[in-house]
Amino acid sequence: MKEIETLKEEFITYLRSREFKEDPVNLYAPINYILQLGGKRIRPILALAAAELFGEDSSSALPVAFAVELFHNFSLVHDDIMDNASVRRGKPAVHAKWDINTGILSGDMILIEAYDQLTSYPAETCKDLFEQFLKTGKEVCIGQQMDIDFETAQDVQIEDYINMITLKTSVLLASSLQMGALVAGASKQDQEHIYNFGKNLGIAFQVQDDILDTFGNEAAVGKKIGGDIVQNKKTYLYLKALELCDKNEREQLHLFYSNKNALTEEDKIKQVKNIFNSCHVRTYAEELKTNYRDLSISHLNAIQVPGKNKSTLLSLISYLDNRTA
Amino acid sequence: MKEIETLKEEFITYLRSREFKEDPVNLYAPINYILQLGGKRIRPILALAAAELFGEDSSSALPVAFAVELFHNFSLVHDDIMDNASVRRGKPAVHAKWDINTGILSGDMILIEAYDQLTSYPAETCKDLFEQFLKTGKEVCIGQQMDIDFETAQDVQIEDYINMITLKTSVLLASSLQMGALVAGASKQDQEHIYNFGKNLGIAFQVQDDILDTFGNEAAVGKKIGGDIVQNKKTYLYLKALELCDKNEREQLHLFYSNKNALTEEDKIKQVKNIFNSCHVRTYAEELKTNYRDLSISHLNAIQVPGKNKSTLLSLISYLDNRTA
Repeated sequence: MKEIETLKEEFITYLRSREFKEDPVNLYAPINYILQLGGKRIRPILALAAAELFGEDSSSALPVAFAVELFHNFSLVHDDIMDNASVRRGKPAVHAKWDINTGILSGDMILIEAYDQLTSYPAETCKDLFEQFLKTGKEVCIGQQMDIDFETAQDVQIEDYINMITLKTSVLLASSLQMGALVAGASKQDQEHIYNFGKNLGIAFQVQDDILDTFGNEAAVGKKIGGDIVQNKKTYLYLKALELCDKNEREQLHLFYSNKNALTEEDKIKQVKNIFNSCHVRTYAEELKTNYRDLSISHLNAIQVPGKNKSTLLSLISYLDNRTA
Repeated sequence: MKEIETLKEEFITYLRSREFKEDPVNLYAPINYILQLGGKRIRPILALAAAELFGEDSSSALPVAFAVELFHNFSLVHDDIMDNASVRRGKPAVHAKWDINTGILSGDMILIEAYDQLTSYPAETCKDLFEQFLKTGKEVCIGQQMDIDFETAQDVQIEDYINMITLKTSVLLASSLQMGALVAGASKQDQEHIYNFGKNLGIAFQVQDDILDTFGNEAAVGKKIGGDIVQNKKTYLYLKALELCDKNEREQLHLFYSNKNALTEEDKIKQVKNIFNSCHVRTYAEELKTNYRDLSISHLNAIQVPGKNKSTLLSLISYLDNRTA
């Protein structure tokens, strides 16, 4: 099995060969720009690794890998407009470097290009891929809408939150794996297992992101700690704290998250973390993460291929376990 | 052959049955809203008529008809944001009724739903439809970008303008017909003819729109005359006038279209029309329209089906000839 770094190199070489050189330049320049900004390329790596898991050469999944990376970048470009986020990977977001209209239209084009990659497969495979990828596309939009709705909703439950992060981020990871497996001719059952491996691993990663955002080490994480608290994000930590804490703490939390309090950002983070600590939400979050991690592993274990084929995907689990950023 | 009105009724009944009733309501309400605003439903009608032309029941093309109508509405929602147009079919545009973020995200969802309709066909047909519809999707985005670029470009040629309106509006009409034909099992050659019938008819309609916008009768057209002139649109009339008029008139036109002149809207329209009249651009435009109309008819004539099958599509030509609005 190829190592993750090898698969990443393979994908980046392919990506370079697929640079958009057509006119109009005002449409394609932002697309090339966002695609070259970098990132971990986790979704294409998953697609390639899944093809290898089922005994195909990773190159057979390169169009799928490009499709999922394009889709991911479409969602970044449009989400950055919606979130009014002007920085992406340390560089200006598309709508900040150009303008909102350029962000909208180039994002639309990236989405169409994403789906267009799938037409390079034979008809039966092509149809299966489209069904899977269109379902995923719709789920990602629903996840984004739920995330927006949660900002103003007063009754978000932990179950809703898990559902939102599943749709907004995990299903694309899961689909990247499943489509790689599909191209490699995996059985329906194995496709389901690899999908659920990715879905649950994605949830585990997201819960860990939430933990690191609040309890991480600033130097190790490489960004300011407490961003979720400052932005009043209804993460697992916040929702679980509301469930666990006493009436007085609950009122305080509501007050802090309504921005009706004149605290400095630093003080707000400190006070909220005090409440989180007093009701031990971190322990619950770590347990939740472990549960999803274990569920993920059990799906990988259930896949009917030689154990040695699983080494690359297993290394993703160790990456989760050792992750500090 | 069913009449156009019958096909429209058939489509509207199908559209009603496909109302989105799922959650989240904040995502689907704008989608149902824009789909119910009405309009001529010309694209779905073309898809259904094309299936009939090749001897299939129009109902076989209903998913294609829904797909092209969804795509059209996706482009309306996103274009209205880009054009800062707050009114659509006499009602508030989606981004005006809700907000820009809702317009972006619901537009994305409509685009994905559009493509998803095609998965209801068998694998081979499905792949052909996807190839056609994704190509068209990219062309529409390119057309929109060209339209945006033309606003500030100083060297737009008539050829560029025809290319832009072809991509921005005609290819979707052409594709609606071709995909209806494809579903009905038309030969590749007949698919090309029906595509070119639609493409050229679309160009003829657009040139006529340009003529009516400047020379139409306000009561008959049902909207204010001269909008293109007020907005400095580089239409065929303007570009042809630049080619035909003398140096003095050309300088005046450039001045009027740079808004560096303190004329009232009414006076600007009057002065520009004077120049248009003095170099007889309307005659050239009518001739251009007729050429595209005739080219369109010759492609319809070349299709290898019984003449009686062509009655519905031929009635579209008479509609063009008698059109005042």
